[in-house]
Amino acid sequence: MKKTIINILEEVDLNQPIFIEALPGIGHVGKLAADHIIDELGATKFAEIYSPSFPPQVMVDEEGIIETMKNEFYYLKSAGEEERDYLFLVGNTQGLSPEGQYEICGLILDLAENHGVKEIYTLGGLATGQAVEKTKVFGAATNKEFAEKLKEHDVTMRSADGGIIGASGLLLGMGTLRGMEGACLMGETPGYFIDAEAAKAMLNVLIKLLKLEVDTEKLDERAEETRKMISKAQQMEQEMMERMTLKPGEEDLRYIG
Amino acid sequence: MKKTIINILEEVDLNQPIFIEALPGIGHVGKLAADHIIDELGATKFAEIYSPSFPPQVMVDEEGIIETMKNEFYYLKSAGEEERDYLFLVGNTQGLSPEGQYEICGLILDLAENHGVKEIYTLGGLATGQAVEKTKVFGAATNKEFAEKLKEHDVTMRSADGGIIGASGLLLGMGTLRGMEGACLMGETPGYFIDAEAAKAMLNVLIKLLKLEVDTEKLDERAEETRKMISKAQQMEQEMMERMTLKPGEEDLRYIG
Amino acid sequence: MKKTIINILEEVDLNQPIFIEALPGIGHVGKLAADHIIDELGATKFAEIYSPSFPPQVMVDEEGIIETMKNEFYYLKSAGEEERDYLFLVGNTQGLSPEGQYEICGLILDLAENHGVKEIYTLGGLATGQAVEKTKVFGAATNKEFAEKLKEHDVTMRSADGGIIGASGLLLGMGTLRGMEGACLMGETPGYFIDAEAAKAMLNVLIKLLKLEVDTEKLDERAEETRKMISKAQQMEQEMMERMTLKPGEEDLRYIG
Amino acid sequence: MKKTIINILEEVDLNQPIFIEALPGIGHVGKLAADHIIDELGATKFAEIYSPSFPPQVMVDEEGIIETMKNEFYYLKSAGEEERDYLFLVGNTQGLSPEGQYEICGLILDLAENHGVKEIYTLGGLATGQAVEKTKVFGAATNKEFAEKLKEHDVTMRSADGGIIGASGLLLGMGTLRGMEGACLMGETPGYFIDAEAAKAMLNVLIKLLKLEVDTEKLDERAEETRKMISKAQQMEQEMMERMTLKPGEEDLRYIG
Repeated sequence: MKKTIINILEEVDLNQPIFIEALPGIGHVGKLAADHIIDELGATKFAEIYSPSFPPQVMVDEEGIIETMKNEFYYLKSAGEEERDYLFLVGNTQGLSPEGQYEICGLILDLAENHGVKEIYTLGGLATGQAVEKTKVFGAATNKEFAEKLKEHDVTMRSADGGIIGASGLLLGMGTLRGMEGACLMGETPGYFIDAEAAKAMLNVLIKLLKLEVDTEKLDERAEETRKMISKAQQMEQEMMERMTLKPGEEDLRYIG
Repeated sequence: MKKTIINILEEVDLNQPIFIEALPGIGHVGKLAADHIIDELGATKFAEIYSPSFPPQVMVDEEGIIETMKNEFYYLKSAGEEERDYLFLVGNTQGLSPEGQYEICGLILDLAENHGVKEIYTLGGLATGQAVEKTKVFGAATNKEFAEKLKEHDVTMRSADGGIIGASGLLLGMGTLRGMEGACLMGETPGYFIDAEAAKAMLNVLIKLLKLEVDTEKLDERAEETRKMISKAQQMEQEMMERMTLKPGEEDLRYIG
Repeated sequence: MKKTIINILEEVDLNQPIFIEALPGIGHVGKLAADHIIDELGATKFAEIYSPSFPPQVMVDEEGIIETMKNEFYYLKSAGEEERDYLFLVGNTQGLSPEGQYEICGLILDLAENHGVKEIYTLGGLATGQAVEKTKVFGAATNKEFAEKLKEHDVTMRSADGGIIGASGLLLGMGTLRGMEGACLMGETPGYFIDAEAAKAMLNVLIKLLKLEVDTEKLDERAEETRKMISKAQQMEQEMMERMTLKPGEEDLRYIG
Repeated sequence: MKKTIINILEEVDLNQPIFIEALPGIGHVGKLAADHIIDELGATKFAEIYSPSFPPQVMVDEEGIIETMKNEFYYLKSAGEEERDYLFLVGNTQGLSPEGQYEICGLILDLAENHGVKEIYTLGGLATGQAVEKTKVFGAATNKEFAEKLKEHDVTMRSADGGIIGASGLLLGMGTLRGMEGACLMGETPGYFIDAEAAKAMLNVLIKLLKLEVDTEKLDERAEETRKMISKAQQMEQEMMERMTLKPGEEDLRYIG
């Protein structure tokens, strides 16, 4: 496995779908929201991505069953008031290296382009590191038209506080080179817990923008379940770091014959 | 040498062998156990792996003889009560980069698939960082059937404490994409010494699972020998770190003309 | 996107142009100076570079509009007293990995060679870490002839203080292998702010060397504008670092399923 | 430039030459010794290596002249009592990544193999971190025959103190896969200065082993000249580190648009 591969599970025919990306990131905000829409609206999985740039590991679920690192595509046909088709990208990881991120995002955009995508929304969190009183939703857009649309929906344009790192940024940036336009929505979050409030605030903006109907109440339950997995993630990252930093005082015996 | 290569030393014909992996890891647990089975049951080496993703170095043995970094395949025919064939993967290192790990594991699974492997067991340690009173054996499986089998043999399913990093995880995860199923067994260990007790506990589970007969008493001797090499490993990793971190106050003169 | 690509926007025919490089670096010195010449002399953009070795992110401008990471080529025909053609390379980033830097610089030199470049000037800052009383301009050259030329223009040869890291060094070094000669000019700067003084001092040397006329007064304004973006950059790099270091105590949930 | 390249400057015909490697490393010990033999015996440069895995930078010499990062091959015909041919590999850097080290060493061994090399000596330093009273020379060998040869020349076999990292280890390890045998010689050094004493001790062993005549007195002068470049190297590595670590509090403006 030297290259990223996309396994197509079902051939689907979509009509200029709106592409929504929400891979794991700050406060789990984007992922919570996207998993929720997929679940509530009954989207169907049709493709999986495996990449040598994903972390070289597997996850273990609550019952001790192993789960591979992957990204997944779902589709939805004729949804919401405007009867639009949708393409969703979710998963349990992102590429680790810059080169990997670019390769994976390139393949994702190939698939999106082949399905006629012209419009992208990427979802994430914006960590403030502080408690949040009333959750703001921040945004950035690929052009002024989308920026205006965001402002009409009470999105605060992210103007003096940095860039957008990872797939949420790259897909929009590289998408413009293929004639796709769109925006990134970021739920404000303290950033150190699974933040259902941030996800709900962001989701409420998104569904208004797209004229979708999604019950956001169940997001709290979803957040609760996700919270149970947190300690797992922390321990895992710690192990990863220990492996990567190879502190000599610790007995990582990788090099012994 | 731009790619990982597998040198086949002997062409072998195996009948749906059970694949057992134990590359160096926490507490040397998996490697101790696998080296022991190979030795006790007289498995035969038939292939070697060299990779540009292995650490760019060599080991030096007790007599000052240089040993290249490599992984090795052994086979065993008609072993145990069930007269099954076995394929073992051991070695003195693992790939360093995510991309390397995926490439190497892909090639390993190619070889396994070509020899008809359907069942994988990967062996490792689970570091608790604390003294262990009665060594537990932890496990994770690719499906419920294997999970049940582990539980019947007093294996504690690893459910709330993270993922499995490195070849032990990847081989199982990527193996499922080729129709292979299996489990990872992890001997509980404080993690900061060569742990024969953890290896013995894990090995006792494994041989019952596989209906093999292996005398585990000699594991203590093997652990003793391995312990002698520990200080070597520690110093080596320290050097590696010093090289990699390039602290400017130290005279690593790599860049001088 | 597995390789660096150059998008040609306009086919141009240049006559042995002088190549001037100024990608982002210490104190923003080179970039400030080059952006200023391009603006003052009205150079025209004709090509863009995108690379998988650039940071996997996008920038966001003051109005919340997304900007991809890229390098850009500009040209200028028959400029200055000597009516020479010019080729400029500017941008908002450099390659992150050594391999990426070499790949990108190789492609840049391909383009330069195809346009007949024989002479290269690379522009940067030299951080002293201290307040600067009277800004010195430091230099290094690919041969003695260029070194003499620099000294005639009050450039202090950089002789006992290290090498030149990144595109400013590599383009000169790799350029010599293609028969190109040239020099690197470095404005002395404390290094921890956008330094218009350093850029002005360096620019004054460059325009005398090249017999160009450029009004350097407006550089102060340009520096002021650039300063507004500083806090942005700092926050961004901080995020990047947090992502890359994956401190387990922080909730970077990249690995959660 | 996506791959390592070897520029052949002169086609040479060698008769089973002895290959001696000494790229930059601990205490400059190997490099000092090899540069000295090349100079004293008048070896001729015939090839150069450039690699995208070398540090992405250039060196600047005492007169401000830029020097590219490279490795260099020299040859010597019918030297010493045994009238043997020699192949030397020296340079100002080594590959940075594991993959780069393997690729470069593979190409070096291709060239060595094409010239009929059967015997390799790699030269380096062994840092003790402490003052050295009487310089020992340490060694490791690819087989017992070479180990015996080293012991006969008062070399202390390196048995309980780790492996050999970088080209000095890899060339020997990978060389054995092509039927080449040899040894690594390491001069004991405190490791934090240019150590002419360590180089002299090691060189004295080497010339006895190879029955060469080389005046080692001038090594002190050579060390003195090299020492002048030390502060340069330190500052350079510091810059490199600062670039690589991208401390956000410092104004590395690589990412600003």
